[in-house]
Amino acid sequence: MNELRLVLQHKNKGMGLEKEINLSCEYYLNKKIANIHKKPTPVHVVEVSNQKSPIITKAFYQKSSTTDYNGLYRMKYIDFEAKETRSKSFPLSNIHQHQLDHLVNIDELGGLAFIIVRFLSSEETFLIRICDIINYVNTEKKKTIPIEYFKQYGTIIAPNFNPRLDFLKAVDKAFLEELK
Amino acid sequence: MNELRLVLQHKNKGMGLEKEINLSCEYYLNKKIANIHKKPTPVHVVEVSNQKSPIITKAFYQKSSTTDYNGLYRMKYIDFEAKETRSKSFPLSNIHQHQLDHLVNIDELGGLAFIIVRFLSSEETFLIRICDIINYVNTEKKKTIPIEYFKQYGTIIAPNFNPRLDFLKAVDKAFLEELK
Repeated sequence: MNELRLVLQHKNKGMGLEKEINLSCEYYLNKKIANIHKKPTPVHVVEVSNQKSPIITKAFYQKSSTTDYNGLYRMKYIDFEAKETRSKSFPLSNIHQHQLDHLVNIDELGGLAFIIVRFLSSEETFLIRICDIINYVNTEKKKTIPIEYFKQYGTIIAPNFNPRLDFLKAVDKAFLEELK
Repeated sequence: MNELRLVLQHKNKGMGLEKEINLSCEYYLNKKIANIHKKPTPVHVVEVSNQKSPIITKAFYQKSSTTDYNGLYRMKYIDFEAKETRSKSFPLSNIHQHQLDHLVNIDELGGLAFIIVRFLSSEETFLIRICDIINYVNTEKKKTIPIEYFKQYGTIIAPNFNPRLDFLKAVDKAFLEELK
């Protein structure tokens, strides 16, 4: 039972930001502002019992081939990953390489691709475009990005009441040219 | 009907619409034409054992809140559901009401929303826009749509070799105005 709790605790890591984004997506959906959803975690099902109402009895979590969130906003395709960190810099290793590649591809195809990062130490949340992430990696040859870089190149998402995390306001600002 | 078409029809038989769409999405992704993915089936996990590499020991399939496929094509958000039917008319009951509502919302927000239907009896596959589906339901007050309606208002997706199901060619035709 303790093991289960530990596994669940581990899985819930980052639940704060995720829950706020989910609530905000619900708000945007109800107000017909945007249609953005979290993708389900892919599960590889091995065993299923009971044909009439199937119960999965053996399955494994799979790596997602894309990011957690995508959808439609201001007639544009939007795609992002959301992460929390306890550190004062953001280790890119928190995001799988294939997820970064996916975001770069979205950017190239004309979608709005970004990452939302929350620094738990200062409770500051930033939106940063994937092109700015890639610029940092290529210029600095480092894969850990300090909060100062987010302050300079990212867009802060100010705390809000409803929606809980008004990240689309930050999208408006970060993608001003694309949304003209 | 020419020979190539007959060969392709024969080759494609039994492969399943979903698999053909998935292979085509892979082709589009590799060629950097579009970025479209099938969403994982949502699973509600109840029990997990083994901390280091978790094994799900009890879980249930959940209803998807959206459609199966979405992505980015020609800078537009694209969203669709794919269904096969053995009948000569398509029962809308094959698609959940909340999925239809989702597609209507996508259409209203300026995305490209449609359904791909394969009639197994004639091995014909059509793309039909959600607005044409809704028009039929509102006008005819029926929820089963005959193949003739698809022939008149839908766009046929001709059998193909690579990509296996060139549904984006049908998107180009069906959304001519939107893609200008």
